[in-house]
Amino acid sequence: MTRIEPPARVAFIGLGIMGAAMAANLMKAGFALDISSRSRGKAEALEAAGARWRDTGAEAAREAAIIGLCVPDTPDVEAALFGPGGVAEGAQPGAVVIDFSTISASATRDFAQRLAERGVTLLDSPVSGGPQGAIDGTLTCMVGGDATAFARAGAFFAAVGRTVTHLGPSGAGQLCKSANQLIICATLAAVSEALALGRKAGLDVEAMRTALSGGSADSFVLRNHAKRVIAGNFTPGFRAELMRKDMRLAVQAIRDHGVFGPASNMAAPLLELLVNRGGAKQDVAALGRLIAELSGLEG
Amino acid sequence: MTRIEPPARVAFIGLGIMGAAMAANLMKAGFALDISSRSRGKAEALEAAGARWRDTGAEAAREAAIIGLCVPDTPDVEAALFGPGGVAEGAQPGAVVIDFSTISASATRDFAQRLAERGVTLLDSPVSGGPQGAIDGTLTCMVGGDATAFARAGAFFAAVGRTVTHLGPSGAGQLCKSANQLIICATLAAVSEALALGRKAGLDVEAMRTALSGGSADSFVLRNHAKRVIAGNFTPGFRAELMRKDMRLAVQAIRDHGVFGPASNMAAPLLELLVNRGGAKQDVAALGRLIAELSGLEG
Repeated sequence: MTRIEPPARVAFIGLGIMGAAMAANLMKAGFALDISSRSRGKAEALEAAGARWRDTGAEAAREAAIIGLCVPDTPDVEAALFGPGGVAEGAQPGAVVIDFSTISASATRDFAQRLAERGVTLLDSPVSGGPQGAIDGTLTCMVGGDATAFARAGAFFAAVGRTVTHLGPSGAGQLCKSANQLIICATLAAVSEALALGRKAGLDVEAMRTALSGGSADSFVLRNHAKRVIAGNFTPGFRAELMRKDMRLAVQAIRDHGVFGPASNMAAPLLELLVNRGGAKQDVAALGRLIAELSGLEG
Repeated sequence: MTRIEPPARVAFIGLGIMGAAMAANLMKAGFALDISSRSRGKAEALEAAGARWRDTGAEAAREAAIIGLCVPDTPDVEAALFGPGGVAEGAQPGAVVIDFSTISASATRDFAQRLAERGVTLLDSPVSGGPQGAIDGTLTCMVGGDATAFARAGAFFAAVGRTVTHLGPSGAGQLCKSANQLIICATLAAVSEALALGRKAGLDVEAMRTALSGGSADSFVLRNHAKRVIAGNFTPGFRAELMRKDMRLAVQAIRDHGVFGPASNMAAPLLELLVNRGGAKQDVAALGRLIAELSGLEG
């Protein structure tokens, strides 16, 4: 096993807010970088810094030891890997593809098998930490797939993430991300309900939030999202429409694995409702306003 | 307004594990203490330290500026206050009763009104922090009721609690406690579901727990209860039967106030199920084993 270190050539495909920031950190770490994306506009700053633009994923992948990928959803990953000009056409046997997108775990296992037939290893590595984490190179990476490939890609992961955890076989990263999102949403629903109760009963809700934060009810959601709910600040942050997608994936994963899923099945429809009532582009904390409204409070 | 400071005479009624520890801390703080409880056996150590045993709550209350109360449930509080030999028979006008029990918020408002007719003020102050917090005098006290009485009782609260928060009118402390418990249970259900998913899919669940703790899914429950679930350690801690009682109160409070309550109504039946399946005396974290079993895993 050879660890793939800079200045090895790597590639990054999908240069949205997250992908572009990750690609920039790969260059800072000393990797030679080929890039490709649906829109070239976002690539300009990277090209100025020395990255090579390639018109297709296949071309970007052709000389790369590791190919990073970050696109919105399952069909986008499938197209980027197996569509015309996709990574599978260009990647060399022995290459490692790291998919940072948040997509279906079962589709991931299928994609991994199809790439394996060409001698290419797929790791799934959905992230948390958002745009700021991507810019700072401090993302949390939840990784599934072959452990040897994971070890080979250590320097690549180190360039983009701070907490990088190998969790198990192909799809394990996606399942951990689903677990992450379902915990956030269920906690947010509970905190929103608690705040609505406080408001309706005339409690000092900021005092309530502080008191609850001091004990066993403490959570990141209570320390952060609850402040947004109290302040009515729903500028994203993490958009509700993205969390709706993630909760659909979580419910699917819970079902696929035959898990008794009371919390995900409670929370997922609330995300549908939030998006359907106009909250798509707001921060997911707008769930707190939704539950207040459904409780007869003014937003 | 006169603040009630040591060596003023105070009383404590209900000397279970929590109440006895709180009474001991009142004596350490320098208060003169009258005590009463259903069973005298638990009072011996306090009597040895100088507390005066009284056969009824009425007698214990007779000379007390502040009367603390800590008993299991709503009917116990009603009996201690208004039953034969109850606090209401003995308490002087101007006295403050602090109820540390976790009971119904609506019953609390009723009790407060009935005491007010006798010139006695009731503060509700359910606590969190458990037996160790009671022993250490570091309880979190969630207080509802008259703000002036709350200020007068500052030294009493300081003797038993570390984080003491006045949240609003009578019942506000109970509602905050309900909020606390519903958040814990909903979070625990979500974390349990996440761990069951991880186990069924072959993930390294301890690595998963650590990865999740590093981001937005972090919570006290994930840092503590989840470790118990993974280790299969359900020695209490906080017994499931007590949490079942608290979740019944939470669901009632949510309903009484017309709050849309998806999280409490998801979690409360799980506590019923846990108790009904033999988990009453186990730590509430046994909910994690229940959800694993309901998912087809071995406990």
